[in-house]
Amino acid sequence: MTTDDPQLEFWFDFGSNYSYLATMRIEALAGAQGVRVLWKPFLLGPVFKAFGWTSSPFVLQKEKGAYVWRDMQRQCDRYGLPWTQPSTFPRRALLPLRVALLGANERWIGAFCQRVMHANFVDDREIDDPALVADILTDLGLDADALLTAAGAEQNKQAMRAQGEQAVRRGMFGAPMFFAGDEMFWGNDRLEDAIAWAAGHVAARIDLA
Amino acid sequence: MTTDDPQLEFWFDFGSNYSYLATMRIEALAGAQGVRVLWKPFLLGPVFKAFGWTSSPFVLQKEKGAYVWRDMQRQCDRYGLPWTQPSTFPRRALLPLRVALLGANERWIGAFCQRVMHANFVDDREIDDPALVADILTDLGLDADALLTAAGAEQNKQAMRAQGEQAVRRGMFGAPMFFAGDEMFWGNDRLEDAIAWAAGHVAARIDLA
Repeated sequence: MTTDDPQLEFWFDFGSNYSYLATMRIEALAGAQGVRVLWKPFLLGPVFKAFGWTSSPFVLQKEKGAYVWRDMQRQCDRYGLPWTQPSTFPRRALLPLRVALLGANERWIGAFCQRVMHANFVDDREIDDPALVADILTDLGLDADALLTAAGAEQNKQAMRAQGEQAVRRGMFGAPMFFAGDEMFWGNDRLEDAIAWAAGHVAARIDLA
Repeated sequence: MTTDDPQLEFWFDFGSNYSYLATMRIEALAGAQGVRVLWKPFLLGPVFKAFGWTSSPFVLQKEKGAYVWRDMQRQCDRYGLPWTQPSTFPRRALLPLRVALLGANERWIGAFCQRVMHANFVDDREIDDPALVADILTDLGLDADALLTAAGAEQNKQAMRAQGEQAVRRGMFGAPMFFAGDEMFWGNDRLEDAIAWAAGHVAARIDLA
């Protein structure tokens, strides 16, 4: 794909369970519609804090939390995805998010994100562990040491903070979020609609040409 | 359909915008799968109050609220449903809910609920107005005076309160909610899944027979 292809921004946090569903589904679905995915890792925690929440709504409201785990099992069954309810939720994911930000435009971004999500929501592992992130990068044939060093550099830390500030500024209140231009779609349930919107806007542009 | 048909409980409040979508869609979708709809009107306000919320989450959190109205427009476009953002939200709906509870097992329940929803989310009218409810009942060829009197009788008021208590006891935290047996599904986005679940349970029962 080229930069002229229609694009869809995919805002996600590795700690977010519905972001797991979207991460596993987005490349195949977007690719089928000729839509390019722009990976936008961000920290959801500070967004929640900006609303005065001390944790995920799924933790703060026990009825919704109980529902969400059942819903996740059913959704994973429906999509044919493996699923384990994480023993820690939401998991801290700053390090893999920084790596994802660093590699957002690299060819390995999709595979990396899928593996981190798998570690959290299938293997039930701590994804903020440098050894785990290094193993994933090495498995992908990448230079783990160099990438972890670059991910922790001041410039990338600042870029991560700027990403979160942009999320708040653009009205995000959860994850996953998708943007087709200015059009915001919330949740894995809207992934297909978001892709269709992104693809359709280009068709409209061509009609006008 | 008979009482042996698979059943799906549909819990809704006329003030709930996503309940509007489900109300307009459920009879055709459920009917196509041979699933009988059990209409379960309830007051969402006391459920929210039980969580310490003073209003709808769409009112309390302005970012989510802004998103929801845009989402509703897109969803209605997708389903081919008319839509007007209500000038009052969430609207008080105690009277029509009491009428719906009274008529939950009557043949007119679906048509009545669709008309009340239309009044709220298309005509932008106050749906707790006795004159409006009476007009809808009369249009359906029913005895409006008799039904409004029965709806306001102490027995029906108590039944309405019991309905809300059951909602809290069964872990509901929003609307619409669907139950296929004990399996709870939240939101218009899960309507198709809930119907499939309800239909599938019966198939399993037949296989075992």
